[in-house]
Amino acid sequence: MGLLNVGSVAFDAIETPFGKTDKIIGGAGTYIALSSSFFVANQHIVSVVGEDFPPAMLDKLQSRGVHLDGLQMKQGEKTFFWSGKYHNDMNSRDTLITELNVLEHFDPIIPESAQGAKYLMLGNLSPQVQRQVIERLTERPKLIAMDTMNFWMDIAMDELKKTIALVDVLIINDEEARQLSGEYSLVKASKFIRDLGPKYLIIKKGEHGALLFHDNQVFSAPALPLEEVFDPTGAGDTFAGGFIGFLAASDDISFENMKRALIAGSAMASFCVEEFGTGKLENLTQVEIDERIKAFVELTDFKMIHAI
Amino acid sequence: MGLLNVGSVAFDAIETPFGKTDKIIGGAGTYIALSSSFFVANQHIVSVVGEDFPPAMLDKLQSRGVHLDGLQMKQGEKTFFWSGKYHNDMNSRDTLITELNVLEHFDPIIPESAQGAKYLMLGNLSPQVQRQVIERLTERPKLIAMDTMNFWMDIAMDELKKTIALVDVLIINDEEARQLSGEYSLVKASKFIRDLGPKYLIIKKGEHGALLFHDNQVFSAPALPLEEVFDPTGAGDTFAGGFIGFLAASDDISFENMKRALIAGSAMASFCVEEFGTGKLENLTQVEIDERIKAFVELTDFKMIHAI
Repeated sequence: MGLLNVGSVAFDAIETPFGKTDKIIGGAGTYIALSSSFFVANQHIVSVVGEDFPPAMLDKLQSRGVHLDGLQMKQGEKTFFWSGKYHNDMNSRDTLITELNVLEHFDPIIPESAQGAKYLMLGNLSPQVQRQVIERLTERPKLIAMDTMNFWMDIAMDELKKTIALVDVLIINDEEARQLSGEYSLVKASKFIRDLGPKYLIIKKGEHGALLFHDNQVFSAPALPLEEVFDPTGAGDTFAGGFIGFLAASDDISFENMKRALIAGSAMASFCVEEFGTGKLENLTQVEIDERIKAFVELTDFKMIHAI
Repeated sequence: MGLLNVGSVAFDAIETPFGKTDKIIGGAGTYIALSSSFFVANQHIVSVVGEDFPPAMLDKLQSRGVHLDGLQMKQGEKTFFWSGKYHNDMNSRDTLITELNVLEHFDPIIPESAQGAKYLMLGNLSPQVQRQVIERLTERPKLIAMDTMNFWMDIAMDELKKTIALVDVLIINDEEARQLSGEYSLVKASKFIRDLGPKYLIIKKGEHGALLFHDNQVFSAPALPLEEVFDPTGAGDTFAGGFIGFLAASDDISFENMKRALIAGSAMASFCVEEFGTGKLENLTQVEIDERIKAFVELTDFKMIHAI
């Protein structure tokens, strides 16, 4: 088994300057699974939903090679629900409602079929749950990547650091890197954070792209300048899904290949923001993805020569 | 004659979280001249200083191939002076003092020896003065690039647009692009601005790099992640100087070569911020520049392949 993905499968209600949605399907695990499914034919997801979760989305995930034996469905309980409103610049948002519901007592159970996964993607969840997943694996994966957010830095920094110490790749945004390290310079922040354990650090910068730090190397992936960002929800998870999916599919964790995986993740994220929720990801074609990756190549391609 | 550079030669007093300076030498024209002098052996500058301006800096410029016959020295008057204080994040600053002095009635006189310049760099000045320079050239340059700032958008938008209509390349930052166009999306902003006249638009994004827009093409130049940004003053002018210097030296205004010029400008700007004022630029070596440009190449270099 190649890829194991752990993360929330949830409902979101989103308001952006372009409009608002009722409850739609969201969750880090959902975005990661959809995004990575364009690279890997099979994967496991470990998550939990309530009895109110629509079977149609589960069918959709299954049809894209996502095995659901690690997805618990709690009778009599409700699915995790998040509601948020984006500001006009789309770079910041307010959380309006958070109903943990089934996530409150989530006990991540790893199905036997998912043991032996070579790639583990820990989507944003409490650091204790993320660590439980690692501890419950009979064999350490070849690569563990982890997403988290400022919320856990605010309320559970010690637990978070314990989990971060166990992973290979940490994926966070620039604000979070600054909060976690106490350093404004991202170069200094990256040293501090990699001293906590991860050999690789990815710093997401939204419309400004992403940076990958490893040893003394750094790679800068651009973001595609977009006419319109319709809804940024899930873009970070979609990035993570494309990144881990690309790595799992190629089974190559060299720095050179990580750079490609960063581009793949960036390309997937650039689709995600074009529609509300998972809408765009659900209907993507391989041709669109290939064209988008080509646009990323062209965006940064230059051959340096001396001026004279 | 290859390059003509027009811009302020001035005094600055700067305060950053790292310290503060007394009056030191600054000015867009100074930074542009110093930066471009690493690419072109000769250039003209059109500017004005007061009798208080130190001859040592003029000697320095001359020794770097900057012809000073277009630099007016006003007896009994004082050099332009700007003082500012940067906020902790170094991305924003407050202007503390602006003393226009000799700039208040600056009448840009083009020396005969500077007529026929193929490349014209208009550093930030009032749009009326910038337009006068263009009108006083007997022959239109092969390429006119222009910098400006939000100040002129606030107080002289109509004049500014008249000047912008006459140039080939407009160089502004992301906030200015948004203010000038009224569009938040930089893609939409770039269309609006290029409809005003310039065929090329460069949007500087500070620590996030720069974008070059032309027709349906876009190029994203990264910024080098730096351990410390000591003083951002002059970084934009240094970028412009490297850009125009590279173009003038190679005498090639193809899109492919503009991309290289963007990288050259970015590399020069990355030096500028490492010390207060012009300190770093005054003591740079060609070897350091070559190494820095190589670092930019490595920063974005990847070869895309399919994951499977």
